[in-house]
Parts: sequence; C-alpha cells; structure tokens
Amino acid sequence: MTIVPEFLAANERYVAGFEKGDLASPPARRVAVLTCMDARIDPAKALGLEEGDAHVIRNAGGRASADAIRSLVISQQLLGTTEVVVIHHTDCGMLTFQNEDLRARLAEGLNADASDIDFLPFSDVVESVHEDIAVIRNSPFISGDIPVSGFVYDVHSGRLQHVG
Amino acid sequence: MTIVPEFLAANERYVAGFEKGDLASPPARRVAVLTCMDARIDPAKALGLEEGDAHVIRNAGGRASADAIRSLVISQQLLGTTEVVVIHHTDCGMLTFQNEDLRARLAEGLNADASDIDFLPFSDVVESVHEDIAVIRNSPFISGDIPVSGFVYDVHSGRLQHVG
Repeated sequence: MTIVPEFLAANERYVAGFEKGDLASPPARRVAVLTCMDARIDPAKALGLEEGDAHVIRNAGGRASADAIRSLVISQQLLGTTEVVVIHHTDCGMLTFQNEDLRARLAEGLNADASDIDFLPFSDVVESVHEDIAVIRNSPFISGDIPVSGFVYDVHSGRLQHVG
Repeated sequence: MTIVPEFLAANERYVAGFEKGDLASPPARRVAVLTCMDARIDPAKALGLEEGDAHVIRNAGGRASADAIRSLVISQQLLGTTEVVVIHHTDCGMLTFQNEDLRARLAEGLNADASDIDFLPFSDVVESVHEDIAVIRNSPFISGDIPVSGFVYDVHSGRLQHVG
C-alpha cells in the first residue's frame, strides 16, 4: 500500500481542468520563495501565487543551506529571478530538537553515523530568519542588488509577519 | 519596489478565509514529496494535497541532494512520514546547462569561484528520477522499509507519469 494510486487519481482531476500548458520556464513574478517543507504551509495559497509565478524552494526549516544557494543561483542566473523571500514559521519542527538527539536516534535506529551532519535546528524563529537573510546576502554567488526579505508564518492563523 | 506589499495583500485575503488553525505538525498522509522549484508546478493542486497532508521538499531539479536527505531524515525520524515521492518534470531548467556554463557565468558576472559546486544538472529526466530514487534508497539515513516512487510531471499537460 502506497500513496501512488491516490496521487494518480487526484492528478487525473487536475489534468481534466488544466489550462496552464503554455507557461514559460522563467517565473513571471521574478521571485524565489525559500520556505519550510512543513505540511501546514501552502505557499501558493498563502502568498497568492499562480502556476508560473515564482520559484518555490523548500527544505526542513526553510534554511539557506548550500543546496538552497545552489537553487537560488540557478533561479537568478538562468531563469531571471531578481528577489528572494525567506519564510520560516511558528511551531516548526526545527525548534524541537538538537543535532545530538537526531544523531543518537539514527545511530540507534539505523546504525548510521550522522556525526558530521548539521541538521540546522534553531531555537528562535525570528533569529533564524535573520541568519538566513544574512547567509543569502553575504553569499558570493548572489548578486548584491537582489532584495532579500524575511517573514514568519503563523501556522495557527495563516498570517505572515514581516521580520526582516 | 519589491514583491513584499503584494505578498502581504494576498496573505490578508488568505487569513480572512483561514480555517486550518488546528492542524498538527506531523503530516496527516505520512508522505514527503521531493520535487523541483519550477514555478509551473503547484504540488498541492497537482497531487490533491490539503494543508496538513504532506511534507514538500523543493530545490532546483527536485534532486536528492545531501540537503534533501537532511530534510527527509527530519521528516521521517521526527515527524513520522513513511513514504517518499520524487517528481522531476519536462522542460526542466536543469536540462539546459552544464556545470562549466554556470561556473563561467558566476566567474564573469560576480567574480565568484564556483569550481567546487556541483549544480546537479541532468540530461535525461527519467534517468534523473531513477538516480535520485537510488540515492534515497541507498542512503544509510533512510530506513530500508520506506517506499520511494518516482514520477515525471509534464508541465504542458499537468500530467504525472509514473516512471519508478
């Protein structure tokens, strides 16, 4: 039993009403959004994005990891985005653990050595947004004229708070 | 001029109709979706996902990078997901360049040395899905009993093709 049949059935319904077949690859609104993978966040609904509007990069925490920078470089250099919006959120899983906890769990459950992995947890969601804005602004791979804004999304109200 | 006022105005409309304030952090459908940041893909619409249903991890290409594995570990070990779905897509930007091209552009435009960055481009979208399924299945940090499925999403029809 996997979720595949459910996804395929839902996709059939999407295809039946699909009217977005002519969109170009470069995002129409020239922005890349970096946010958390959290299931409660629907970036398109929360920000009013239509298909074709914006790149959406998501990982655990919405962190400006090296891989997020890789994605932003491709977004800016090859697909013409000129702005970044970073969104972390309340009640984030990243606030609930430390690297040592997760490493111990992987050692115990999977006999796997994650001692050199930083899982990028944080203890303050406004601070983590500020940190990630700084990482992006200071990256040698991001042009200095790219505006970078930061928000905290409240999963209980759906509201964005502009914090940086 | 940034996109911030537009995002805040759209978010006000979302908040006005928001009815999802009681959702728990662990995804209700216990699945993590790994897909591309491409602006034309709305994973929630294309897969029938509601807020609260699934983790959504997105990067350039939908690649199983080390950072995607970091996110999957947190998804599985801390938030209870038990399945992974990998979705790459037709007309992907990752099919249009090689590492050398992007490194040259960064050297020329930003005087930045990206010689040690692999931007993870690919030349065949079915192969790239198979590669990333293998990376996830073979990761020491992912339990062997986690099903991993792969799809190619057609940006011109909205249709998912099950390829692995």
